[in-house]
Order: sequence, then structure tokens, then C-alpha cells
Amino acid sequence: MRRPQPRLFKGFRDVFAADIFAKQRIVDVVRTVYERYGFLPLETPSIEFVDVLGKFLPESNTPEGGIFAFRNPELGPNVPADDPNAWLALRYDLTASLARVVAAYAELKRPFRRYQMGYAWRMEKPGPGRFREFLQFDFDSVGVSGMAADAEACCVICDAFEALGFARGDYVVKVNNRKIIQGVLERCGFTELDITAADSRAGTVVRAMDKLERLGMDGVRELLGAGRRDATSDFTEGAQLDTAQIERIEEYLSAKVGSRTAFCDSVAKLVAGSLLGEEGVAELRQNDELLSALGYSEERVVFDPSIIRGMSYYTGPVYEGVLTREIVDEDGQVKQFGSVFGGGRYDNLVERFTGQKVPATGASVGVDRLAEAAKLLPQSRAARGCTADVLVTVMDKQRLADYFAMAQALRAAGINTELFLGSGGIGAQMKYADKLGIPLALIAGGDEFAAGVWQVKDLRLGRELSAQVESREEWRKGQPAQQSVPAGEVIEKIKASLQ
Amino acid sequence: MRRPQPRLFKGFRDVFAADIFAKQRIVDVVRTVYERYGFLPLETPSIEFVDVLGKFLPESNTPEGGIFAFRNPELGPNVPADDPNAWLALRYDLTASLARVVAAYAELKRPFRRYQMGYAWRMEKPGPGRFREFLQFDFDSVGVSGMAADAEACCVICDAFEALGFARGDYVVKVNNRKIIQGVLERCGFTELDITAADSRAGTVVRAMDKLERLGMDGVRELLGAGRRDATSDFTEGAQLDTAQIERIEEYLSAKVGSRTAFCDSVAKLVAGSLLGEEGVAELRQNDELLSALGYSEERVVFDPSIIRGMSYYTGPVYEGVLTREIVDEDGQVKQFGSVFGGGRYDNLVERFTGQKVPATGASVGVDRLAEAAKLLPQSRAARGCTADVLVTVMDKQRLADYFAMAQALRAAGINTELFLGSGGIGAQMKYADKLGIPLALIAGGDEFAAGVWQVKDLRLGRELSAQVESREEWRKGQPAQQSVPAGEVIEKIKASLQ
Repeated sequence: MRRPQPRLFKGFRDVFAADIFAKQRIVDVVRTVYERYGFLPLETPSIEFVDVLGKFLPESNTPEGGIFAFRNPELGPNVPADDPNAWLALRYDLTASLARVVAAYAELKRPFRRYQMGYAWRMEKPGPGRFREFLQFDFDSVGVSGMAADAEACCVICDAFEALGFARGDYVVKVNNRKIIQGVLERCGFTELDITAADSRAGTVVRAMDKLERLGMDGVRELLGAGRRDATSDFTEGAQLDTAQIERIEEYLSAKVGSRTAFCDSVAKLVAGSLLGEEGVAELRQNDELLSALGYSEERVVFDPSIIRGMSYYTGPVYEGVLTREIVDEDGQVKQFGSVFGGGRYDNLVERFTGQKVPATGASVGVDRLAEAAKLLPQSRAARGCTADVLVTVMDKQRLADYFAMAQALRAAGINTELFLGSGGIGAQMKYADKLGIPLALIAGGDEFAAGVWQVKDLRLGRELSAQVESREEWRKGQPAQQSVPAGEVIEKIKASLQ
Repeated sequence: MRRPQPRLFKGFRDVFAADIFAKQRIVDVVRTVYERYGFLPLETPSIEFVDVLGKFLPESNTPEGGIFAFRNPELGPNVPADDPNAWLALRYDLTASLARVVAAYAELKRPFRRYQMGYAWRMEKPGPGRFREFLQFDFDSVGVSGMAADAEACCVICDAFEALGFARGDYVVKVNNRKIIQGVLERCGFTELDITAADSRAGTVVRAMDKLERLGMDGVRELLGAGRRDATSDFTEGAQLDTAQIERIEEYLSAKVGSRTAFCDSVAKLVAGSLLGEEGVAELRQNDELLSALGYSEERVVFDPSIIRGMSYYTGPVYEGVLTREIVDEDGQVKQFGSVFGGGRYDNLVERFTGQKVPATGASVGVDRLAEAAKLLPQSRAARGCTADVLVTVMDKQRLADYFAMAQALRAAGINTELFLGSGGIGAQMKYADKLGIPLALIAGGDEFAAGVWQVKDLRLGRELSAQVESREEWRKGQPAQQSVPAGEVIEKIKASLQ
């Protein structure tokens, strides 16, 4: 029999203690903020019918494209592929399932405001920091038509950043409105305004606009015109716009000005005459008014013409929470994390199921990326590698019950304690504690049991001192980090050492 | 275009606020207990190669049987089905992935003690309380050969039950050792002792033994002999044992006696002469000694011959944490929850990958079932349906910014606050707060803004009073649950009301 290789599928990964502690902190803080705004938790299945999920991923057109889809194992192999029950898939986000819930449970009070944390899966090309399985943590308000819900979403994102320890100025929420983009296209002479359909000309234009940050204005101009040849000589077909059209779009993309009202004024001119575009500007103005009244100024929330978002279900306001602070990692590398929150308004998603319009808006945070960034904040506690505060070592296997009893006594006192259960002498056990970063160790052999004492060893102090002393021998002689403590005082001593 | 039905795949479900709060509490408490013993968190992917997961589910023999398997979407359709990379699957438990991690990362210090929470999926027949997607929360020690690790696992389970609010006597940990079962079979004349292989005679015998609780001793006797015809006339082939063999197994299954040492003494006689069986008894005796030294008496941990466990990878000690307390639900129905923790020792699981034996032991808790039980404990806080403590109602849409500002001020003071973002008048908003169970509401219209006050309405009190008063009109007149509070004192007033 061939042995299986202990391998991972591409784009998937194992996560160890320090990264999980960082992630757990994000989850706890973000949940607190979501609950502060009264959102309710919801959980939905990881697996849904493909037609329930819909095909809202950027540039995906087949059941398998972009998602993990598989045949319904309850139906035989002869079910036609276009049977609505033929295909199941792992969810690619949490929003499609939210829309299903709203459509399915008539008894849900509106507005239905829920938060949901869960994994999502996409069959995309993985890369550094880009995985095929990722944790999302969403909040959404369903059944809300006013801009107050979108303004609130911006506040939630700001509050979450600050609750996580990011200072004002370390982050910014960038807001735009897709109706404005559609208005610009309408003024360019477009009649088909479905800006995210993979095969529409409007879609090609918007995808070109979305590349502003990566390619700069020159690159976008090429993609809007005849096309662009990249460094590897690959040619991307352009949208074939004429000069006047390209200039109008360039003008829109350049409307990045200091104040939100100035942005509204300048794009208002560009979309004047387009009903959709004017509606978009009016919505942005309402958003601005509410945010300003609450003191969420341009320091925290800006309007930005380049925010488009990939998902095709967004119908109006779109927003991103962006980490603007450059963070230096342990190796001195400057890291940029960019957009970590993303969301917007999707007024048609429930309608897919019911035929009735149900306005909705909300956003999602990429927990893993945010955790990676938060871990690097200078004020964040050094990453722990372990949960135990004490390792009870085992010197004499005959007295296992005594070591075990000490460990239980410490646990009963609320101290996280590991009893060494592996094999190896006291040296190996110390190395084990050291590798994991356990701060304290308890040691007792025949002499100690006879005298009714335990050796309490402070491994943190040991690590500090061993960095100072010249030789291992010199260090061993002194043992300044080790103290003999009467059995009855061990718990007190350990509590004091951990403070 | 046909509208998709907002339906769920069979065996999957949506979970709403009250159940999630109950589950969250279980997760937090169980994590605290696992960390108390020094276990480290780990996360592994939901999707693994099928050969990595292995086929350890009870009675499953095909890649698809019992699990959600699908073809690797990165390989073309022409890859032969027996290519090790041809099949992926959703994990059916967390243990197989743990073994992969131990095999893959040579640098991991042993013992490797990890906890992991995650969903697992099984393509099995769903039923009431039986879902195809379920949350598991495991703890395991890898690289530990001594029985101290198994005894510790029993302590962890007891501590978790008690930390969750179950009293001593409400639960019991039942322990057995598969080597003893194998010893009994050996003494019955069996030479093939693989007790969990679906197609082995030993497997048939053990599956019959496993049905003791459901069918009683008579049913088991039929299954051990010629076979059994059930109420629906379906016939199950028996193991065809002779009378002497059946009697020996019956004697073993009856060895349920009060004390752990008495159990060991009585099964020792039954397996005398079988090396494997004697080893199993010796292991149980060590387990008993440690547990007794720590004060984990028969009140908490018993030895039970009927504990077998389904997974075929267990090699020695097996244990279950069982809720013995009958809990009465809101409808007066008595509910039995049975086994919620399950685990054991699996010394061969890493060997599958590396060829080297790595002893390991650990257990898993079914979070959903435990949450359902904990929710029904009389001392548990009444299930909340919401996160918000206050609903800020919107009477005058022109003053939205003022309502919004009040909501932000409450949030800044640490009070979970929802601003009503839907449509509908004050009556609809009150109904909304009532349906969700939000305790307080803030109301202000033109008069209040002019006078600089807010109406603070206590909906809990309203609910109590409305149960007492005769008519809705009488209730409306009095409004004893509503108070006018100066704007500057609202936060104080609300804090006081919530205490």
C-alpha cells in the first residue's frame, strides 16, 4: 500500500497558535463593535445550491468558474446538468446566503440586521496572502432604503478600525456610488449600463477604470482606447472609446479632491443630465451630511471615484475600509495592507428569489489580512506561542500522580497549566517549555518531595539572563531564575510571578 | 429566467441569534478549559485530499461514501480516478488533518498538544438533531504514550461539563479499552482482530455489541447468532457465533459494575491469556489509579464495556462524555442528550504517512448538541433574541442626524444601540423592538426636541404590565413604563435601567 503524502491542496494552509491568537482578537473586537450597533448573529450552511448562490463573482460564467462546485450527491449521475438541483457549491461569500434567508423566512422582522462570520471558498489562482479559503465577517442591514444605513456602515468600519488599535489617520473609508459611474457612461453615449457584466462594453470600461491604482492613468487610457500590451507582451483588448469619451472618464477619475462636498460638486457637472448619475450624487450628498453631523470628517471617510468593487450585485453606494498606514514587519520590510473592509448597497439581491425589491446594504472584513496587519502594530502585545503559563515537569515517573495533582491544583486556581506528557529528561522538558515560550516551570525530584518544596523556574528571566552571561557553564552555576518554594505556597508564588 | 427557490440542501440549516448565543457560550467556556490545560490552537483547511483524510468513517468504503468528495478542479477530466490527487473532500473530522500536520511539520515540538474548532461534513442520512454540517471542538495530545494523557483527557471533559454549569451527577465520562474487546474476541477463538473493518467478522460482532443500548441484550444476542428481523421485517445477517461465544460476549457486556477496580477485576478473568486483552486491562488500571489520586471518582468517570466508538482509527482507550441528566424543555418534553464528547487513543494515525508510530490521544465535543442541552439548563440566562440594549426610534425623518447622533453617543458609552433604519411609524418601530426583545427604546418628536428631552420607554416593564392590565386602551392611558428624561441625562438613565 502506498503511503499518502501529508500535503495540502494548493491555496489552502495550516494556521498555528500565534496567528490564531491574532485572529481571535480581531474576531472578538469586531463582534463587539457589530453588537454595539445592534446587529444580530446568523449562521448559514457552507454548502448551497449553485442557483441560490448565483454567479456574482467577477468574470465568472460557469458553475465551476471561480467557485468550488460539485454534483449533488443525492441525485443520480443521469440528472441533466441544467436541473436546478444538479449542482451544489461551497459559498464564495456570505451575502448570497443572506439574501436566501431573507427570501425564505417571511416572519423575519424588517429591517433584518445581521452579522455573520464564516469561511468562504473561491477556486481562484492563489498567491502570497491570497488563499482559496478565507474567513469573512460581515454585517448587513436588509430592508433599509435610506442613506442612513450606508452612513452607519461607514461608522461601523471606522469604529472597528479604532477598536482594533488603529489610530485616526492609519485608515480611511473610501466611498463611491456606482450610479455616478453609470452616469458618466451615459454621458459618454452608452445605453447599456450594466457595468459589471463580463461581456458588456460598459463592463470592459469599468474593469479598465478599476486598474487605476495598479497601472496609473496612462495604462487606463490605453485600456479605454485601442488596448494595452504589458511587460510580458500580452495584449489586452481595449474598450475602443474615442478621445472625447476617454477624456470624460479621465476627468471623472481625477475628481479626487479634498472635501466630500467638493467631490460631489465636481462630479455633479460630469453627470448632469443623466438621471442615474444625478441620483448617485444626491445619495453621496446625503451620506456626507449624516457623516458630517456625527463628526466623521474627511479624516475618516472620503469620497473616491476609483472605488468600484468586484461583485456585480452592488447597485449604488460602494465602500472600502483601507489601511493607509505602512507597517514595518519584523524583518524591516514595509508592508501595505490596503483594502480590508469592502461593501456596498445591493437592492436587487433578494428580488432574484421573490420578485420583490428589498433594499439592503452592508460590508465584509477579511479577517486574515486584518489580523496580519494588527499583529504588526507596535503597541500590540508580543505574539504568544502558547496558552500555558506553567509547565509541570516530570522528573520521577513513579510520582506521576503527584505532578498531575499539582497541575490540577494550579488549574483549579485559574492558572493555565501543562503537565509534561511526552518522553525525555528534564533538559528536554526545559527545551520544550522554552520553544513554546511557556513562562514558568515547576520541578520536583526525590529531594524536593522529601523537603516538601518545588523548584519554581522563571524561563523568561532565564532567557534574558542567558543573553547576558558569557558561557553556558557560568549560567548553569548561578541559576538565579530558580527558587525553592514550599508546596503550600507554590500557587501564590506563581500568581505573583505572572503579574 | 426562472427564479431560484430560496431552499436549503437536505441536512443543512440556518441558525439564528438565540442558538448562536448559546453556541458562542459553549465555545468560549470550552476554549477556556482547553487552554487551562495548555493546549494550543490550530487550524487546518476544510478541504483535503481524500487519501490524506483516509477512510475511517464507520462503514464507508468509497471515496464518496459518507463524505463530500469531488474531483480536483485543477486537474483535467482525464486524470485516472485512482491518481492520489484526483479526489478532494470536505473533512469529516479534525483528527485526520491533525495527523497530516504532525507528519508534515518535523519542527513541531512533541508532545504536540492542540485544540481545534471547526466544521466537519458528512454525507449521511440526516435526522432530527443530525446534520450534515456540524461544529466540532477537539483537543488532542500527540507524542504521548503514557496513560496520563488519557486520564488527563477524562479530566478535561469533566472540567468542561462543570465549567458549563452541569453539576456533578448530571454527566459522566465512560471509559473503555478496545484492546479488552479484542481480548474477548481472541478468547472466543477469533484470529482476525480488526474490530472495525466493515467486511470483517470481528467488525460484525462489534457492531452488534454497539447496539446494546438500542436493542437490549436480546437483540444483541440475535445479531451475534443467526441474525435479527426488525419491526419492519428487514433482516440483518448475524455473526453466526456459537452459544459459548455468545455467552462469553454477553458476560463481558454485563460487566457493568459499580467500581472501576471491580470492572477491571471482572474483565481480567474474561481476557486472561490474551496478551492484547491483558494489556487493555493494565491500561485501564493505570487510568483508574491516576484519576483516583486526583479525586475524579466513579461519580465522574466510570468504566463501561459498551463504549466502542465508530471511528476505526482508535487503538486502545476510548471514552465518551455523556449527559445523564434528563432536561425538560419549554414544552415540558423530557430530552436526553447522551454522548456529547467522544474520543480515544489512535497510535497509528501518523504512521499512515510516515511509517513511524506516533502515539496520540484526544477527544472532540459536538458543540451544537451541547449548546442545545446547556440552553435548557434552568440556571442558564434566558435566551436573548438580540444584541441591542436600546432602540433609537425615528419619529421625524428630517431630524435623522439627531437620532443618529444620540445612537453614536450611546455606543461611545459602551451601550449596544440600534438606530431604526427601516420604514414605518412609531407603532411599527415599537413592535419591532418588542419582537426582537430589545429592552429599552428612545423616542423624540417635535415637542421633545423643543423641550430638550427624550422619552425613555422600558419595554420589559411594558411587557410585564401589559400582561396584567385588562385592555389595550387602559394600558395606553397609563404609560407607566415611559419617562421623560433631559437629553444630558439619557445615557445615565439608560445605564441605570440596564443594571
